[in-house]
Amino acid sequence: MAKLNWGMIGGGEGSQIGPAHRLGAGLDGEFAFVAGALDHRPEEGRDYGMRLGLDADRAYGSWQEMLEGERGREDRVDLVTVATPNATHYEITKAFLDGGFHVLCEKPMTMTVEEGQEIVEIANKTGKICAVNYGYTGYSLVRHMRAMVARGDIGDVRVVVAEFAHGHHADATDADNPRVRWRYDPAQAGVSAQFADCGIHAMHMASFVTGQEVERLSADIVSAIPVRTLEDDAMVNFRMSGGTVGRLWTSSVAIGRQHGLTLQVFGETGGLRWSQEQPNQLYYMPLGERLQVIERGEGNLSPEADRTSRVTVGHAEGMPLAFANIYADLAEAIRARKDSRLMDPAANLYPRAEDGLRSMAAVFAVAESGKAEGAWVDARPPMFR
Amino acid sequence: MAKLNWGMIGGGEGSQIGPAHRLGAGLDGEFAFVAGALDHRPEEGRDYGMRLGLDADRAYGSWQEMLEGERGREDRVDLVTVATPNATHYEITKAFLDGGFHVLCEKPMTMTVEEGQEIVEIANKTGKICAVNYGYTGYSLVRHMRAMVARGDIGDVRVVVAEFAHGHHADATDADNPRVRWRYDPAQAGVSAQFADCGIHAMHMASFVTGQEVERLSADIVSAIPVRTLEDDAMVNFRMSGGTVGRLWTSSVAIGRQHGLTLQVFGETGGLRWSQEQPNQLYYMPLGERLQVIERGEGNLSPEADRTSRVTVGHAEGMPLAFANIYADLAEAIRARKDSRLMDPAANLYPRAEDGLRSMAAVFAVAESGKAEGAWVDARPPMFR
Amino acid sequence: MAKLNWGMIGGGEGSQIGPAHRLGAGLDGEFAFVAGALDHRPEEGRDYGMRLGLDADRAYGSWQEMLEGERGREDRVDLVTVATPNATHYEITKAFLDGGFHVLCEKPMTMTVEEGQEIVEIANKTGKICAVNYGYTGYSLVRHMRAMVARGDIGDVRVVVAEFAHGHHADATDADNPRVRWRYDPAQAGVSAQFADCGIHAMHMASFVTGQEVERLSADIVSAIPVRTLEDDAMVNFRMSGGTVGRLWTSSVAIGRQHGLTLQVFGETGGLRWSQEQPNQLYYMPLGERLQVIERGEGNLSPEADRTSRVTVGHAEGMPLAFANIYADLAEAIRARKDSRLMDPAANLYPRAEDGLRSMAAVFAVAESGKAEGAWVDARPPMFR
Amino acid sequence: MAKLNWGMIGGGEGSQIGPAHRLGAGLDGEFAFVAGALDHRPEEGRDYGMRLGLDADRAYGSWQEMLEGERGREDRVDLVTVATPNATHYEITKAFLDGGFHVLCEKPMTMTVEEGQEIVEIANKTGKICAVNYGYTGYSLVRHMRAMVARGDIGDVRVVVAEFAHGHHADATDADNPRVRWRYDPAQAGVSAQFADCGIHAMHMASFVTGQEVERLSADIVSAIPVRTLEDDAMVNFRMSGGTVGRLWTSSVAIGRQHGLTLQVFGETGGLRWSQEQPNQLYYMPLGERLQVIERGEGNLSPEADRTSRVTVGHAEGMPLAFANIYADLAEAIRARKDSRLMDPAANLYPRAEDGLRSMAAVFAVAESGKAEGAWVDARPPMFR
Repeated sequence: MAKLNWGMIGGGEGSQIGPAHRLGAGLDGEFAFVAGALDHRPEEGRDYGMRLGLDADRAYGSWQEMLEGERGREDRVDLVTVATPNATHYEITKAFLDGGFHVLCEKPMTMTVEEGQEIVEIANKTGKICAVNYGYTGYSLVRHMRAMVARGDIGDVRVVVAEFAHGHHADATDADNPRVRWRYDPAQAGVSAQFADCGIHAMHMASFVTGQEVERLSADIVSAIPVRTLEDDAMVNFRMSGGTVGRLWTSSVAIGRQHGLTLQVFGETGGLRWSQEQPNQLYYMPLGERLQVIERGEGNLSPEADRTSRVTVGHAEGMPLAFANIYADLAEAIRARKDSRLMDPAANLYPRAEDGLRSMAAVFAVAESGKAEGAWVDARPPMFR
Repeated sequence: MAKLNWGMIGGGEGSQIGPAHRLGAGLDGEFAFVAGALDHRPEEGRDYGMRLGLDADRAYGSWQEMLEGERGREDRVDLVTVATPNATHYEITKAFLDGGFHVLCEKPMTMTVEEGQEIVEIANKTGKICAVNYGYTGYSLVRHMRAMVARGDIGDVRVVVAEFAHGHHADATDADNPRVRWRYDPAQAGVSAQFADCGIHAMHMASFVTGQEVERLSADIVSAIPVRTLEDDAMVNFRMSGGTVGRLWTSSVAIGRQHGLTLQVFGETGGLRWSQEQPNQLYYMPLGERLQVIERGEGNLSPEADRTSRVTVGHAEGMPLAFANIYADLAEAIRARKDSRLMDPAANLYPRAEDGLRSMAAVFAVAESGKAEGAWVDARPPMFR
Repeated sequence: MAKLNWGMIGGGEGSQIGPAHRLGAGLDGEFAFVAGALDHRPEEGRDYGMRLGLDADRAYGSWQEMLEGERGREDRVDLVTVATPNATHYEITKAFLDGGFHVLCEKPMTMTVEEGQEIVEIANKTGKICAVNYGYTGYSLVRHMRAMVARGDIGDVRVVVAEFAHGHHADATDADNPRVRWRYDPAQAGVSAQFADCGIHAMHMASFVTGQEVERLSADIVSAIPVRTLEDDAMVNFRMSGGTVGRLWTSSVAIGRQHGLTLQVFGETGGLRWSQEQPNQLYYMPLGERLQVIERGEGNLSPEADRTSRVTVGHAEGMPLAFANIYADLAEAIRARKDSRLMDPAANLYPRAEDGLRSMAAVFAVAESGKAEGAWVDARPPMFR
Repeated sequence: MAKLNWGMIGGGEGSQIGPAHRLGAGLDGEFAFVAGALDHRPEEGRDYGMRLGLDADRAYGSWQEMLEGERGREDRVDLVTVATPNATHYEITKAFLDGGFHVLCEKPMTMTVEEGQEIVEIANKTGKICAVNYGYTGYSLVRHMRAMVARGDIGDVRVVVAEFAHGHHADATDADNPRVRWRYDPAQAGVSAQFADCGIHAMHMASFVTGQEVERLSADIVSAIPVRTLEDDAMVNFRMSGGTVGRLWTSSVAIGRQHGLTLQVFGETGGLRWSQEQPNQLYYMPLGERLQVIERGEGNLSPEADRTSRVTVGHAEGMPLAFANIYADLAEAIRARKDSRLMDPAANLYPRAEDGLRSMAAVFAVAESGKAEGAWVDARPPMFR
């Protein structure tokens, strides 16, 4: 089976996200990396691209150049990944969708709700795939949690509790460090820091697993390190479209927590608990029975879990494979379109423009509620109200 | 050293709390169980008391009888434990304090803030000990957390995160079970169910460990099982007297959680994490260093930890010993008074009437804020504003 | 119900074992501490006994004095605990059994196999209870493991894996410390150090849970700190009377392990795993199903578990309560004899002279095999061959 | 940088090992998959190769054909992976080394010690790389353990305790299943089953981490399911070249264990503990201090850890990345040779022919000792005695 052609914008030399995407896209051998505009400095970008094996004519100096160059080719890229600085996601994603390309955009998809709505509309109009990289949803057992909830294993979901807490920005003496400071500066980061950076992953995961959207929320936001304008710790209560109650805590000053992305889902007839720090086990208690440990890779789980599990039970899988699962979804989605067939429903789970839009609306809602002493606000984008 | 005389009101045959108190009081051999009014049915109470070894004249038929009987004795009880139904705590505690007795009252100390203030005033006026049984603060490593915070090991505390979540009331088909139902019925339980029953332990522990009082709070309360009038799930955000931000989640519908009382404390220069399900380990990360595991019973902890640690390192200690530590505090407090000396400061940690009052104020504040869509309310009792 | 009278030999001021026994014996209010010969120095022993509340005439100066004194009394002690230095256990236990007393002897019961056989014979002849304090078998979930195996939940047991590893004697610079050194000196400790001190607990637990005796063994013993004559690390393979294969590792130089007493039991149709560092959970996997977490105190376990569980599910219980469970067994055994009735079979689980004897035979077998390069030797005492 | 050319023998359609190698080799983009003889059935192999993207002339029908075909090419493969049935490893590896190719051979490298010696000699003579796939040594924190031991962080190593226990062959009713049965049949599996399959990984890891070789061993082997000729449970005691004492337990009937590969290393001044089920944490206790949790990806570890860590701290990495690290070592080794430079010493850690040989000698030693009631036998291959 011929590989799909894949290109990347951003992810230049020295970035963390570039190698992660190349690893994720390349891992299954579905995508060949054939084009890129890897740096905002044309020469550096071209040079780095060629060192990574791109042909000279597809190692572009800018995204505009790449758009022009790819548009005319027979063998144009099947998928473009946008991994540039946040403020440029909207413009680039929009241009490539308009140009007839499928796009995987890093989060946040846009900087405003209005831009997000525009992207959704363009994606709908063009019929192109516009995916957003909430990569943690690619974990096999997160997929299985979603499948369990969907098939009714725990009944209607009453309460979902999500966390994303770390302590990597807890050093006040380091708050001036430019690598950290920009995140808490509204001029660069927008209306929210820790919630927009980490909390939104947890909130998206709550939606992903429950199959419900966040409708209303109330936020308590804090700058635990006082010099920060934006929050480094937030608690968000929310209500979902199916009636589920949500609680979400996120923090960057939680010294001792490494990467505390956890999800607990409590339904009428069972409870589930998962943690990214130990992603190969899922704790499940059916009402009135004992706590069980579901292992990634064990037999008879769900098609969603089986599809995203790559090594035999007992061998750990980690974040890079979760990431690769998003690309695997996209490869299946693109191939299904090429073959004019329905895609595997178990792969039809990649986050998409609507998710990027809803996340942006939630970020603004958190900022608004946080300023208003936790007043409950509508968390939906206007177009979905 | 002669034993102290101890008496109990409530805790009749078949109760859970009676044996727990007798175990806790008796464990160190400090208290001799010599008097009791164990049942609201006089004959049953007298009979059970005698079967437990009380002399016939001190196996009382009612608390009033006991108050009269003990008042006149040379060898009157040194401490009275009140473990009757919640609604009677106030009246009995008040009567015994007035009668010149030291009292350990089960929580909640009262049903209203006004009653709580009255108890505090009586305790102050009479000079008698009025302790309240927030027994989880007796764990050795909880004491050590407090000591670490007090001596500045983690700097000023920025955020405290507390949980008390279980799933034992999650079965909707069981909601009519009288053993469960009364807790969610305002006529019997007052203004709050899960927060008053469990959440308040977590909030008290947050105060105990940080050495700060809760000043303001905002609550999101939910009846996840709709037939319930009172809440079975609550999220409370709060602010403390020293500037610490608090988050507290409590639930009785969290299927899969057994007894999830946990505390995380994040300061300027370190973080701490403790869980009641594994009470002999305390996780500590100094800023910029590695996570460490502090073991109960290891050398060179704090006087507060050493005093409450009873078996050598590596051997688990559990809840009954935490409970006994409260009694050990009280024994030391009573003996110090008898000997006209200062008590060991490491024992001067038993929860007292002020804590019972503050807890009651917090319960009412949670109920009020919960009804007002999470509006921030003053959580302090009027006398402490 | 009147308390039973209890006396103690050894456990003088400053000892660790004395308070532990008084706590265990007193915890349920079954035993009253009425007599003692607490120190080999008569005056110190008498004085300390009186300070602990003994009447002057029962605060004895020596065990011989106590034997004489108690023998003649109407209200003589119902049970004597022997907690003296190891080398004296045999003589004292023998004398008290001969004198018609029930005895609980600290481990090791004797210093030789021959002495052990003699104690078994005397216990049989006199009909008195001779218990040996393998206190870790008192944990509720250890009792439940035994019950599960006995009722066939995991089928015939194929393999049992036991560990007791700690690192508290790992400091070579501390090897001359008298508190440590005597354990590795044959003149004081006998033929074995770490196996006799810790390993034997793990081996007894393997027998207790499987209901089988150790028949043959092969040992690899090592002095990891070379100045030691006796072993500080040992691996023992063994075969049991029902065909089970055993593996047992014990070490005192395992830096980072606190109190690693663990047991894994693998049968034809299921596996079990328990660890003393987290004694309130038992991991159980039925063949072909998922790992389950059994919680101490949950409903519908076994009579053996229910009897030894004292606080509600989710509240931790620790070592002192396990210890108390051995005393509770003995109280029931003594009362049943007084009442001429059969004892509760769920209490009939205290370790007894036969266990003490078998343990002594195993200690000698380990020493013998260890010297013979791991040759397989008979681990049974001659009288049971 | 141009990719290296990589070919594979074995790993045909439906195999588990084929995708794992293609994932591992391809993950960093260092190797291009350009040639293969993927099946012993020529047509199937060619067809599958072409479906995987091989050119028709490099999708070979047999390894002999591939050897001929590649030998003559300018762009011949830089590395050949041998992932065929065990009994063919020797012949193919030998032929390709002789043909001047670098080889990565799946374990076991050979079926006899003599064959192993021959491979070592050929590798030495030809100067070609002959690596053996003990892939678990690729985990970043296993590399870091080795570095810590090498730089003296825990002093001389006294005791190493290794385990590899699972329960996936515990069902006696499934013992006739051909997928399981062959492993316990000497005609197909050789002289050892569970030790050769799993235990040898744990033993190699003990050598890898301590930097010592196994010299002598004593084994207790058991067929817990009696119809099996070869062992399904084994305990091996051993002594290493630097004086370290080893204990190793392996089992395939340990119901409830998923993939219990663990290593504990106890030295004079510290202890280490690592478990494959949670590979991103390493537990370290310096003598006299507290247990610390080392996180994969944290700063200031060792060059060996940094090189093999691919995502930021707190994000889990799993087995596929460990596997890829072996390929990354090989890519560096091959490139260094091409560039006539010394390779990065932190990459010079791939297991090699000598390790394959030593493992084979250990397998035969275990079988021999096991038959001889655990007699101690020399575990070294004759050429290293």
